[in-house]
Amino acid sequence: MSVSEWTKNDVRNSLPDRAAESHKGTFGIALLVAGSEDMPGAAILSGLGAMRSGLGKLAIATDEAVVSHIVSTLPEATYVRNGRYLLSKNEMELSQYRSIAVGPGLPEDGETRAAVERLLKAEVPVVLDAGAIGGRSYEERNSPTILTPHPGEFARMTGKSIGEIENNRASLVSEWAQRLGVTIVLKGYNTLTSFADGSVYKNSTGNSSLAKGGSGDVLTGMILGMLCCNKSWKYAVLNAIYLHGACADYWVKKRSAHSLLAHEISELLPEVWADVETSQS
Amino acid sequence: MSVSEWTKNDVRNSLPDRAAESHKGTFGIALLVAGSEDMPGAAILSGLGAMRSGLGKLAIATDEAVVSHIVSTLPEATYVRNGRYLLSKNEMELSQYRSIAVGPGLPEDGETRAAVERLLKAEVPVVLDAGAIGGRSYEERNSPTILTPHPGEFARMTGKSIGEIENNRASLVSEWAQRLGVTIVLKGYNTLTSFADGSVYKNSTGNSSLAKGGSGDVLTGMILGMLCCNKSWKYAVLNAIYLHGACADYWVKKRSAHSLLAHEISELLPEVWADVETSQS
Amino acid sequence: MSVSEWTKNDVRNSLPDRAAESHKGTFGIALLVAGSEDMPGAAILSGLGAMRSGLGKLAIATDEAVVSHIVSTLPEATYVRNGRYLLSKNEMELSQYRSIAVGPGLPEDGETRAAVERLLKAEVPVVLDAGAIGGRSYEERNSPTILTPHPGEFARMTGKSIGEIENNRASLVSEWAQRLGVTIVLKGYNTLTSFADGSVYKNSTGNSSLAKGGSGDVLTGMILGMLCCNKSWKYAVLNAIYLHGACADYWVKKRSAHSLLAHEISELLPEVWADVETSQS
Amino acid sequence: MSVSEWTKNDVRNSLPDRAAESHKGTFGIALLVAGSEDMPGAAILSGLGAMRSGLGKLAIATDEAVVSHIVSTLPEATYVRNGRYLLSKNEMELSQYRSIAVGPGLPEDGETRAAVERLLKAEVPVVLDAGAIGGRSYEERNSPTILTPHPGEFARMTGKSIGEIENNRASLVSEWAQRLGVTIVLKGYNTLTSFADGSVYKNSTGNSSLAKGGSGDVLTGMILGMLCCNKSWKYAVLNAIYLHGACADYWVKKRSAHSLLAHEISELLPEVWADVETSQS
Ligand SMILES: Nc1ncnc2c1ncn2[C@@H]1O[C@H](COP(=O)(O)O)[C@@H](O)[C@H]1O
Ligand SMILES: Nc1ncnc2c1ncn2[C@@H]1O[C@H](COP(=O)(O)O)[C@@H](O)[C@H]1O
Ligand SMILES: Nc1ncnc2c1ncn2[C@@H]1O[C@H](COP(=O)(O)O)[C@@H](O)[C@H]1O
Ligand SMILES: Nc1ncnc2c1ncn2[C@@H]1O[C@H](COP(=O)(O)O)[C@@H](O)[C@H]1O
Ligand SMILES: [Mg+2]
Ligand SMILES: [Mg+2]
Ligand SMILES: [Mg+2]
Ligand SMILES: [Mg+2]
Repeated sequence: MSVSEWTKNDVRNSLPDRAAESHKGTFGIALLVAGSEDMPGAAILSGLGAMRSGLGKLAIATDEAVVSHIVSTLPEATYVRNGRYLLSKNEMELSQYRSIAVGPGLPEDGETRAAVERLLKAEVPVVLDAGAIGGRSYEERNSPTILTPHPGEFARMTGKSIGEIENNRASLVSEWAQRLGVTIVLKGYNTLTSFADGSVYKNSTGNSSLAKGGSGDVLTGMILGMLCCNKSWKYAVLNAIYLHGACADYWVKKRSAHSLLAHEISELLPEVWADVETSQS
Repeated sequence: MSVSEWTKNDVRNSLPDRAAESHKGTFGIALLVAGSEDMPGAAILSGLGAMRSGLGKLAIATDEAVVSHIVSTLPEATYVRNGRYLLSKNEMELSQYRSIAVGPGLPEDGETRAAVERLLKAEVPVVLDAGAIGGRSYEERNSPTILTPHPGEFARMTGKSIGEIENNRASLVSEWAQRLGVTIVLKGYNTLTSFADGSVYKNSTGNSSLAKGGSGDVLTGMILGMLCCNKSWKYAVLNAIYLHGACADYWVKKRSAHSLLAHEISELLPEVWADVETSQS
Repeated sequence: MSVSEWTKNDVRNSLPDRAAESHKGTFGIALLVAGSEDMPGAAILSGLGAMRSGLGKLAIATDEAVVSHIVSTLPEATYVRNGRYLLSKNEMELSQYRSIAVGPGLPEDGETRAAVERLLKAEVPVVLDAGAIGGRSYEERNSPTILTPHPGEFARMTGKSIGEIENNRASLVSEWAQRLGVTIVLKGYNTLTSFADGSVYKNSTGNSSLAKGGSGDVLTGMILGMLCCNKSWKYAVLNAIYLHGACADYWVKKRSAHSLLAHEISELLPEVWADVETSQS
Repeated sequence: MSVSEWTKNDVRNSLPDRAAESHKGTFGIALLVAGSEDMPGAAILSGLGAMRSGLGKLAIATDEAVVSHIVSTLPEATYVRNGRYLLSKNEMELSQYRSIAVGPGLPEDGETRAAVERLLKAEVPVVLDAGAIGGRSYEERNSPTILTPHPGEFARMTGKSIGEIENNRASLVSEWAQRLGVTIVLKGYNTLTSFADGSVYKNSTGNSSLAKGGSGDVLTGMILGMLCCNKSWKYAVLNAIYLHGACADYWVKKRSAHSLLAHEISELLPEVWADVETSQS
């Protein structure tokens, strides 16, 4: 089983254009289902990642109490209050969304599970992260499904030990992507992404400054945003991972790897993205 | 029907002075009616745009629950709690305001409609955006009325299809500005502004980084602010549009067009405005 | 009646030292009574001005509902909840404070008046601004009392018309400072400060970027802070006024005078203060 | 009794690595118990210090009402609501934490005391600051206990007068560290740290810009964070103190010592830390 590296050249050649005559409708609305009482910040982090990543509009479905934490930091978003609950009761319309992400800051409970079931019925790309990564099948999906576990979450999902995973990252991610018919992003040092055909791509950006709470939430948001504007949804996934790591690489040029706050990844993105766009092959 | 371009030269020559001996009363109080439960951030975005644009004081009339989201980001503003409701009941005094904007983040419901009716009775320039753009006549207005629809809102307002609008932007905006006796800002790539006399001005600043939720809210605020300090209210409208786009043009010099957050437009304004002020013709 | 200018040289020679071996107790605790439901931001603005200006600790006495707006912007402060109410009922201990300011964002009501009466019994410098500037005598005060009216507030306070005031600024401010036995800072272009002996000092820093809501609140805070660390309380007043204006002068070097937000004055202060400290005479 | 200086060379040689293949689990979860109704900001300040200092994840146990103040500033943290209360009732699991800090912004009441008692039963390094520094013995502790009093707190703790302390800092801190079997960080100009063996280390970074409310809270957080990633827990303590002061020294290069806000210490840390990491011996 071969692993290809997704290089800076690949990224530059596959980044989306943003046409002069476009408007926010050109890029569509992304739905983020994230944040709960004890982990409210995850909605901010993934929301920031998403709004920096090319979407047209962002709707955040979250618990009533979480909304008030987000508004001052991300006034550009709109809200579906108690969205997770509404989803779990099948009381939320989804037809207007172009891409969906669910999981950052959500508890792994029945309400989350029911909400995820509902979201998977939408015929658009769905990203599952954190509290939404769980044991289920994806047989009825016709649109891309993207799981973004770190090794601990991949262990729970597969029943393997973390050691086993660390020693067989490429073969296991490929095997499970094929078995479930989904895309799996196995995060960590040299993140591996496998598509449902078993192909595996390695990412070489990023560093240990990302080894801190919240950085995965930003990535989920970035994938969500890029799923709204791309030449191919696979590029959206691979490019989000690349740029997320590239922001961290930019950070450590002048700042200690011990001191990055995850929300700062999104603040570095505008320049880092432009650097890749304008770089020479 | 001819379309003139409103150029950098026009802007520089028509920007307001800020006299050495002025005080906040010199520039007057602007009233912003914006923000509701599910779209609270719009009040922040238009409030930031307004306070950066030359007014003396800003009062924000918004729902009780929205106030708490704004204060930490915009401590310079004051509040009229439940202002939209008070307006709809004709229980709010308006005589102290020099300019008014209404709409960002408001639902298109009866309360908004009643509030707008009340505001239109004020003998000062009124900007109508988003939820406040609606089917009504403006016959009794003696002061400037400025509508700021994007093509979708212009379609709903005129009953035309978006395609028809896109193919006849200049003639339609001119026709409707004359018919309603108002100023219409038809937003998007190359925003067109038509005054009630049918004259049309094209704006050439701005780019696709603005094609994202929230950027129109900032523009509404900027027009509101500039209506408090100008050589002519028409200049206020045209210059706000120019500078709003110029901020976006400044952004993309070093940063990706996919990654602008609307509130950052207002952060770029101080330098961009100064650049135009001090530029050579 | 002669008016002296308080120059950059005067400021540099009278700025406080911050001794190497000092601790926060060296500089004492300042009390700020500010902010109410409809003008909550004033507490943030004056709080920021105060904490940037050399005090040891800041306690903000404000309405319960206002506290929650301040914390994220000014985590360094502590709170006396419902402080204005407690003061008005004489239920708040004041012995620990080295200086006091009251008024920004307060309504001119009975509760404010009662709170001010109580504060004036404290034997420390007290700054009265905005809602706390009112008709009363100061005969029983043995410590400095500093009133900071803008011309409109000075008009209400003296019963003169604004026109009369503008035409006789120096003589009126001197007359009333002597009559009331207090310090009066008559704000605006070329702010004039008169001490109870009738001497008048003119300030020449500042510009029309300050002619916007909130800039006076920042000044009140800066005076409060500097009253905690100074070679003489008169220097604290005059230097705060100078540095406040100097921040605005720094702003307009590269940014439009129409676009300053008051809280940004306090962000410019650290460098502007250092510039004066290290300047050559 | 000899006092050694902990120099820049010592710091550079003992700073932790952040291995390329690490993940957030490599650095563990820190628990911060801080913040109460009247001093909510202390939780933000110590939280920022902690998350900038190398930990893997941060959980903040604080009063329900305090959580809402922190989230927008520190979205990377998670929460244990009413954590102090739960601790005082022995209803909070502690096995997942690698290091603990308690005290910033806490009242010295029975609930705090009971919570501290509970925390001291955890077999991990515990930092006691502010409201948690109190009269108790540490005989049953087998893990490092670190007290961080300023002279006033050290006076209350030891029953000595502040004058006595100031005149015998090294001998007293050494005596009490041995007597209690703990580490004591006696803060202030030239902070002294004594370990339970009586050895004393002097810190020479820092300046009077730190003599303002909140700077101690940031230090407590920095120690907490570094206790999660270090070559030895003693290095974590000494290096946190050094870097905290070095940030202040960086500040005064261009900015007045009167104007630092404590949360800005944490904003300077990334570059200051990197400067030491990459400096030549
Ligand atoms: N040592 C590392 N090198 C590169 N990337 C990392 C490292 N540690 C964590 N990351 C990335 O940081 C994010 C952590 O996600 P999570 O564990 O969900 O917070 C993922 O995108 C990881 O790939
Ligand atoms: N492609 C574009 N080029 C230039 N300006 C744009 C473009 N897309 C959107 N805008 C501007 O962004 C704002 C969008 O407003 P709204 O649709 O109400 O959020 C308006 O000022 C538009 O003129
Ligand atoms: N045109 C101006 N030139 C210089 N300073 C001004 C000017 N307008 C206002 N200010 C200052 O801005 C502050 C306004 O205070 P207030 O009216 O209470 O908000 C005072 O410090 C004034 O001295
Ligand atoms: N004059 C000073 N020189 C150096 N460090 C100081 C000075 N004053 C205060 N500090 C530091 O600032 C912090 C104050 O802690 P606290 O009193 O708890 O807020 C401690 O880390 C002190 O060591
Ligand atoms: Mg994660
Ligand atoms: Mg709009
Ligand atoms: Mg004022
Ligand atoms: Mg302390």
